[in-house]
Amino acid sequence: MQAFVTGAAGFIGSNLVDHLLRAGHSVVGFDNFSTGQLEFLNEALGVSGFRLERGDLLDRKCLAVAMQGSQVVFHFAANADVRFGLEHSRKDLEQNTIATWNVLEAMRANQVPRIVFSSTGSIYGEPNVFPTPEDAPFPVQTSLYGASKLAAESLITAYSEGFGIESYIFRFVSILGERYSHGHVFDFCRQLRAHPERLEVLGNGLQKKSYLYVQDCIAAIMTALAKADKRVNIFNLGLDQYCQVNDSIGWISEFLGVQPEICYSGGERGWVGDSPFILLDCRRIRNLGWEPRLSIQQGIIRTLEFLQSNEWVFDRRPSG
Amino acid sequence: MQAFVTGAAGFIGSNLVDHLLRAGHSVVGFDNFSTGQLEFLNEALGVSGFRLERGDLLDRKCLAVAMQGSQVVFHFAANADVRFGLEHSRKDLEQNTIATWNVLEAMRANQVPRIVFSSTGSIYGEPNVFPTPEDAPFPVQTSLYGASKLAAESLITAYSEGFGIESYIFRFVSILGERYSHGHVFDFCRQLRAHPERLEVLGNGLQKKSYLYVQDCIAAIMTALAKADKRVNIFNLGLDQYCQVNDSIGWISEFLGVQPEICYSGGERGWVGDSPFILLDCRRIRNLGWEPRLSIQQGIIRTLEFLQSNEWVFDRRPSG
Repeated sequence: MQAFVTGAAGFIGSNLVDHLLRAGHSVVGFDNFSTGQLEFLNEALGVSGFRLERGDLLDRKCLAVAMQGSQVVFHFAANADVRFGLEHSRKDLEQNTIATWNVLEAMRANQVPRIVFSSTGSIYGEPNVFPTPEDAPFPVQTSLYGASKLAAESLITAYSEGFGIESYIFRFVSILGERYSHGHVFDFCRQLRAHPERLEVLGNGLQKKSYLYVQDCIAAIMTALAKADKRVNIFNLGLDQYCQVNDSIGWISEFLGVQPEICYSGGERGWVGDSPFILLDCRRIRNLGWEPRLSIQQGIIRTLEFLQSNEWVFDRRPSG
Repeated sequence: MQAFVTGAAGFIGSNLVDHLLRAGHSVVGFDNFSTGQLEFLNEALGVSGFRLERGDLLDRKCLAVAMQGSQVVFHFAANADVRFGLEHSRKDLEQNTIATWNVLEAMRANQVPRIVFSSTGSIYGEPNVFPTPEDAPFPVQTSLYGASKLAAESLITAYSEGFGIESYIFRFVSILGERYSHGHVFDFCRQLRAHPERLEVLGNGLQKKSYLYVQDCIAAIMTALAKADKRVNIFNLGLDQYCQVNDSIGWISEFLGVQPEICYSGGERGWVGDSPFILLDCRRIRNLGWEPRLSIQQGIIRTLEFLQSNEWVFDRRPSG
């Protein structure tokens, strides 16, 4: 099988590329390197079944040519800077919604029959039901990130209905693990490297969050691809557990051997549009036999181990 | 109040313009005349409080300038050719989703605090719950039209959350009445004008449909604007009744005094992505005191009366 992976040099994308290559598939990786890191593809670039295409999803011709001969598209490229959604509102629209439309049109031109899409639990807005199932009451979007991802999901399922493309849509909680390079664990580590005595925390530290380890995430995707066979397949991906931001601060501080003073910005939310609580009902994917291997705490420790041995990552990302 | 109406020369938009002018408001009408009809603005063009701006919603600069000084935006422009969604897939994305983003950005630039948006019951996809309430289980989009409208809704509510814009979103069933100029009643009339002895019907004639008379639709919108005061206000608009396509064929034939042979294309659906049944739960708007005045049959008769005295409309629209 030849897989086409967008966002191939990103956190989840590059882990997926390695997984697919190890399983014997050939892979075309597509990335514009706006946030992707060439180092994340070090292993892949040594494998003969891998081809890297530098390109932007807004360049429709380049995309359609690069996709030729692929049997499945893993569309993992996205504007991942959720918090900047309101400051750079065009970015979510272009990188998440219009880019997805371009991917679908390129699939249609190349007759690629299958798409796997990385969506987000943020599309549930501020749900009333916890844990939140895939068929929760029709949510109201509260963030541009969620809005742009729901728009992308909607385009994908409409193309499934209209053109027979099989779709696999995964609504993730936050993902952690090797090559993780944005989000609050990253921000806390960066702060504590710069000044171990003080940690500035957005919100009141009581925000509840659920996390999933990246390899558990990939295992879930592969399980769904092997076992789910509807035209449209939608799955929540997460853990049944959750933690509070304060829990993760404790684990991070212990791992790093620091005891910082915590300065809270206050309020229930980290930022406008931040959801105070995301906990997904993942029975649908569990019913296919998938089980996560790592707890939230174990996932955070793996992340910290990665960051400790890859300090270069901190220098690559603009401070948030 | 100065109202800015996109799609001002369209079916619903032009009726709304007349309503607002009669109520003493000033109105800026914006239309690119891709499907709008200048004749629909004959009354408005004679009123001093009306200004017409010819322009396209994809031209962001032109839009932002035209919107200056408005206090509320009625965003009614859309790609209304639902059935062509899959043939011209870019059109829904541009005219419904990207255009809405442009409207929101122009509102932000001009500090316009309120938006009224014409969405559609099509965003419920193929619901399991009838009548379908606003908080039905999270639907899967089955048409590009529905997908592009849901994307627009999502952008609007995210802007409400992020920038404090008040939003009024109306999910319509099909609307009928004066200036109606596309859809199945229109198509049936056109066919029967050309050959009164034969009527070709997509599907099996058993599709259930709910319709609302355009003046009842506008009255509902005005009721919500006066009485609903959340930041995000979402309302279904329709009748509690439904009819089958065969019912409307009977009413139309009787009105026109014809007895055509009916040729069904067969199947449960008129076209790919057509929903076999749309019936909305409208208790939310009824609870604000709104009540429709015309039944489906009465709305269809009004439509036929309009078409009979405005035969020029048939020559303006490409045959579908």
